[in-house]
Amino acid sequence: MRYAFQVQYIGKNYAGSQIQLENGKEIDTPTIQGELEKALCKLTCGKSANNNKRQIKTYFSGRTDKGVNSIGQVVHFELEQMIVASKFVYSLNEILPDDISVSDLRVVDTKFHAQKSAKKRIYRYEFINRKYKNAFDGDLMRVKFDINLERMQKSLDYLLGEHDFSSFKSSGTLNPSKVCIIYKAECLKSGDKVIINIEGNRFLYNMVRTIVGTLLEIEGHNLPPEHMKEVLEAKDRRKAGQTVSPYGLTLMKVEY
Amino acid sequence: MRYAFQVQYIGKNYAGSQIQLENGKEIDTPTIQGELEKALCKLTCGKSANNNKRQIKTYFSGRTDKGVNSIGQVVHFELEQMIVASKFVYSLNEILPDDISVSDLRVVDTKFHAQKSAKKRIYRYEFINRKYKNAFDGDLMRVKFDINLERMQKSLDYLLGEHDFSSFKSSGTLNPSKVCIIYKAECLKSGDKVIINIEGNRFLYNMVRTIVGTLLEIEGHNLPPEHMKEVLEAKDRRKAGQTVSPYGLTLMKVEY
Repeated sequence: MRYAFQVQYIGKNYAGSQIQLENGKEIDTPTIQGELEKALCKLTCGKSANNNKRQIKTYFSGRTDKGVNSIGQVVHFELEQMIVASKFVYSLNEILPDDISVSDLRVVDTKFHAQKSAKKRIYRYEFINRKYKNAFDGDLMRVKFDINLERMQKSLDYLLGEHDFSSFKSSGTLNPSKVCIIYKAECLKSGDKVIINIEGNRFLYNMVRTIVGTLLEIEGHNLPPEHMKEVLEAKDRRKAGQTVSPYGLTLMKVEY
Repeated sequence: MRYAFQVQYIGKNYAGSQIQLENGKEIDTPTIQGELEKALCKLTCGKSANNNKRQIKTYFSGRTDKGVNSIGQVVHFELEQMIVASKFVYSLNEILPDDISVSDLRVVDTKFHAQKSAKKRIYRYEFINRKYKNAFDGDLMRVKFDINLERMQKSLDYLLGEHDFSSFKSSGTLNPSKVCIIYKAECLKSGDKVIINIEGNRFLYNMVRTIVGTLLEIEGHNLPPEHMKEVLEAKDRRKAGQTVSPYGLTLMKVEY
């Protein structure tokens, strides 16, 4: 039977979502996938389980980097035995570390693949826009100069539709195609927090964080929103802004 | 000149708000007051300052325990020199640890006293009401059984007005009077979070946390809301529920 569930995590204490290999061997560093597979095995493999071998393999909708959070990451895996969903989710959550949880377990078709079947990913980036520090800012980046939300929205509007996003990719991208479709890109304010919601069919490595870095360059240097269009059309990473901190980034939802 | 400001903090990493003395000597444990006085001295005492002596004494509206947070704690102190408020607050925040911040600095009358002049304190207690864990629950207590919000509100209604709250005080209370006036006591839900707002002229040691523990006893054992009245009238700490975790408690505001 193939199962899928949603996984929530705070990325701060992990080297990223995926188990990392070096010369075909796992690197001993905490990852979301590593913790999830360990917990799944504890629950289902029985006492004879060889803990050094990955007995239950999990497939993520996509990798998230060190420090990136998730509310709606989707993961699928296969199990031979039948399970009672509510009991299974409860027990798995009790085994998992405090900063990782699972929900919405369901049986899926064997053709379903968390990564390959995904049609849309929704990310959110949050940062603080305030001169002064506040004890409750947590790990969010703080931007001290005033953000012009209207201009920021105009900058984001240039990203809508199908484009080659080469300017916003970091060098690690494996997939040769740099074309993504952006369905939605909006910014809003909630108190001192600026929230940027971006929906797309796929995202390149560090793409959202580099888009935010470019938005901040426009705001910080009082550039016209058209600067975003120029960066996009240049297809040159050197034209875009910095890749901002991962702590404000959250994978909100994956649609199928 | 006497100044007052608001202080925000996350109580988790501190032994409480107040510097703790043992035989007249300060115990070497991190407190909000200790960090604040250190930072104030760094900013104003000059290089000749004796760091082992408390050169600027701060007065809090009231003490908060280890683990309790603040959004609106009010603190007053005296300084000989004139200061530029916005610059002073900015610099002080840069010196303070990430989980402590100050805001709203103003000059006050020399008759103003952060504790003695306070007329009303507003506290908030938050906990999670959900069977399953979620990675974003943080340090909030999780209650697994269903909360009946309507009954909880009825229980809270018995606290309104002037009462002897002996049943809800922990033994450490110094002030001999146990009479407090509660102006408001409401509960509401935001997603999976239950929020309890309580406003009163003063609060006894651990009073809010013991009120919440009693509410949970009523909910967990399906007692009638009148149980709150019985506990209140008994003036006996043994009749009340447990003192719940401090992590969900926040001092929201102090009114003068």
